[in-house]
Amino acid sequence: MSEADEFVRVARRAGEAAAGLAPLPRAAKDAALHRIADALVAAAPEIVEANAADVARARENGTSEYMIDRLSLSEGRIAAIADAVRKVAALPDPVGESVRGSVLPNGLELRQVRVPLGVVGMIYEGRPNVTVDAAALCLKSGNAALLRGSSSAHDSNTALVRVMQRALAETEVPADAVQLVPGTSRESVKHLMRARGLVDVLIPRGGASLINSVVEESMVPVIETGVGNCAVYVDAAADVDMAVEILLNAKTQRPSVCNAAETFLVHADVADAFVPRALGALRKAGVTVHGDDRIRSYAGGDGVVEATEDDWHAEYLSLDIAARVVDSLDDAVAHIREYGSGHTEAIVTTSQPAAKRFVALVDSAAVMVNASTRFTDGEEFGFGAEIGISTQKLHARGPMGLPELTSTKYVVTGEGHLRG
Amino acid sequence: MSEADEFVRVARRAGEAAAGLAPLPRAAKDAALHRIADALVAAAPEIVEANAADVARARENGTSEYMIDRLSLSEGRIAAIADAVRKVAALPDPVGESVRGSVLPNGLELRQVRVPLGVVGMIYEGRPNVTVDAAALCLKSGNAALLRGSSSAHDSNTALVRVMQRALAETEVPADAVQLVPGTSRESVKHLMRARGLVDVLIPRGGASLINSVVEESMVPVIETGVGNCAVYVDAAADVDMAVEILLNAKTQRPSVCNAAETFLVHADVADAFVPRALGALRKAGVTVHGDDRIRSYAGGDGVVEATEDDWHAEYLSLDIAARVVDSLDDAVAHIREYGSGHTEAIVTTSQPAAKRFVALVDSAAVMVNASTRFTDGEEFGFGAEIGISTQKLHARGPMGLPELTSTKYVVTGEGHLRG
Repeated sequence: MSEADEFVRVARRAGEAAAGLAPLPRAAKDAALHRIADALVAAAPEIVEANAADVARARENGTSEYMIDRLSLSEGRIAAIADAVRKVAALPDPVGESVRGSVLPNGLELRQVRVPLGVVGMIYEGRPNVTVDAAALCLKSGNAALLRGSSSAHDSNTALVRVMQRALAETEVPADAVQLVPGTSRESVKHLMRARGLVDVLIPRGGASLINSVVEESMVPVIETGVGNCAVYVDAAADVDMAVEILLNAKTQRPSVCNAAETFLVHADVADAFVPRALGALRKAGVTVHGDDRIRSYAGGDGVVEATEDDWHAEYLSLDIAARVVDSLDDAVAHIREYGSGHTEAIVTTSQPAAKRFVALVDSAAVMVNASTRFTDGEEFGFGAEIGISTQKLHARGPMGLPELTSTKYVVTGEGHLRG
Repeated sequence: MSEADEFVRVARRAGEAAAGLAPLPRAAKDAALHRIADALVAAAPEIVEANAADVARARENGTSEYMIDRLSLSEGRIAAIADAVRKVAALPDPVGESVRGSVLPNGLELRQVRVPLGVVGMIYEGRPNVTVDAAALCLKSGNAALLRGSSSAHDSNTALVRVMQRALAETEVPADAVQLVPGTSRESVKHLMRARGLVDVLIPRGGASLINSVVEESMVPVIETGVGNCAVYVDAAADVDMAVEILLNAKTQRPSVCNAAETFLVHADVADAFVPRALGALRKAGVTVHGDDRIRSYAGGDGVVEATEDDWHAEYLSLDIAARVVDSLDDAVAHIREYGSGHTEAIVTTSQPAAKRFVALVDSAAVMVNASTRFTDGEEFGFGAEIGISTQKLHARGPMGLPELTSTKYVVTGEGHLRG
């Protein structure tokens, strides 16, 4: 059988599994999740062995230690993954929730209720824990998961899915509700992107180039996640101490993630008070500042790199930050509109009108007032778990929890109602 | 300037207008809508004259009288279009609505609020009233509208947009918030479909081939609307009188629309009682039934056409209906899953368990219990207006009112909160 035919077979089985899974009550889904968690712990040696093959191949290929660390599984890490599955089981079931309801003037009863999306396709990079996280979130929300992880983690993902399917076989949830996309070639990703009618939504998680290629090529509806060129704007009315702390936290607390700050913009009126302190604190934290001329004038030619157009666009994911002095809040907003990725922006200000205007004009998934950009996160927002952070405006925007993995259905009940 | 460059210029102006429109209060938007309504009425002669050119061209091209009727504008029809705009002004403003809010354990205040989508692209067929309806719904929800109607209505659409822009020029809403896509070629539609980053969502309204081509080619997120292969299932426990009435209403009350029934499925246990009466009533109403062998056995070889595979898939939009006897509710669900378009299905039954099972298993935007499929409609659902009926699962499903033309933004307010 060709890889394309094999893909269609797998996707159809996922669709059938989704149909069987959709009407299951919460208890059945939670029991299946607990079974998966137990099975992962019990099968940890088998999973670690498969993972060792991936890690060995990665080392042969000269993969960086950072990437190898993301790829590596130990019995301890598998226990943590299993705990995360149990946590998902403990979350409320979004399916069946009434989101709208009324009795129409003609007596028809109208209810809009949450239902699963159906088959959720995930494309992601070399972190095998995503295989289990995504499967757990999909199952809990009544969806089948069709997973396409990095080929670098293929052995690990195969083992994880085998263990999960074995566990599901002993539950009411169909085992086909969790499957890997067959094959490891680039072509196999394309099968997923062209599977309109077989896959209900595609969620790419990874770098900008992965996400762009999926958005451009997919015929299946896509939820874009992850690219974060986040800015901290220090307003004329900022508390300078607070501004330095927020900037430092936003940039350095975990520089490799999408909600880390990549740019700061400072109002000219507060630049004298703020910039020297900020540059000192950032230098101490090992951060390279890429500044415009006005920022550089505070550095005495020392320690601040000249910013280019590329810097304003950059999602560094490293200890680098772009910096610019602006003449007004509206200039800060204009910079963000031009260069931002619509993920998270923060304003530091004691001025209520300034905060209100920034919130109104900045068109990003999350806008922080006097808080670090690092808070844009499903866990931090209290969602219990997240499948990604959407930077598009359709369907879901910002951290996506279980409700964002559902659609809705209108249920209309009459007594022989006819339209006149 | 090339058409592609001209498109980018227009789309950028729409984006700037959207940014100006987004923070406007309801009063400013409603005032603009009333100004548009008045201007349409005042300019009715100018619009009718432009429309006459479209109509004359359509007649030369041998367009059907039905299509010419959809295309034609009179002063009376323009007055009705203006009234619809005033009705949109009277609807609640979805922008700014809090859809979620809480204080997090660390004291951060979290609010999720509705915001406009930005620039909404519409692709639609030869009904010039859609130009105004879509513009009004977009403006009310704070969005700029980038409109691409049928080239057959180009003169009408140009006049309507000119009148609307003239009206907007005297209001706080930027006139560029309503624009036509430049050009009438097929290529000009492609500019819209490739305008990722310039257009936030594309809503095609029209036949299946238009919608399919947009879904397959668009890099801009799409909301599919409109295709309706709707089924009425007559359960073993149906009230036969009610079933005949609902079927007749669903098929014949307005056969040309997407929520009209295109198939009926009848449980074998009730077929003897139901089918002869249904066939008689449908024949009397001028409906051609395309039945399977079991349906045809009731017709005595008279008046029922043999159904082919194509009939099960058909969205007739005419006085035709496909019909099949099924042995169980689950067989009816299986038929719908195989052939339905996910728009609206109805069950007629007095059995509560049967109704519950049908509602749970049928995966359509709307499921009717003892009511006609014709009720799936924004007006009927009490939304005041609709921009289309979504048959996809992402973002919006079923009739789309003003809230479905919005996204959301998280606003997080702290007091110097840092992530630990």
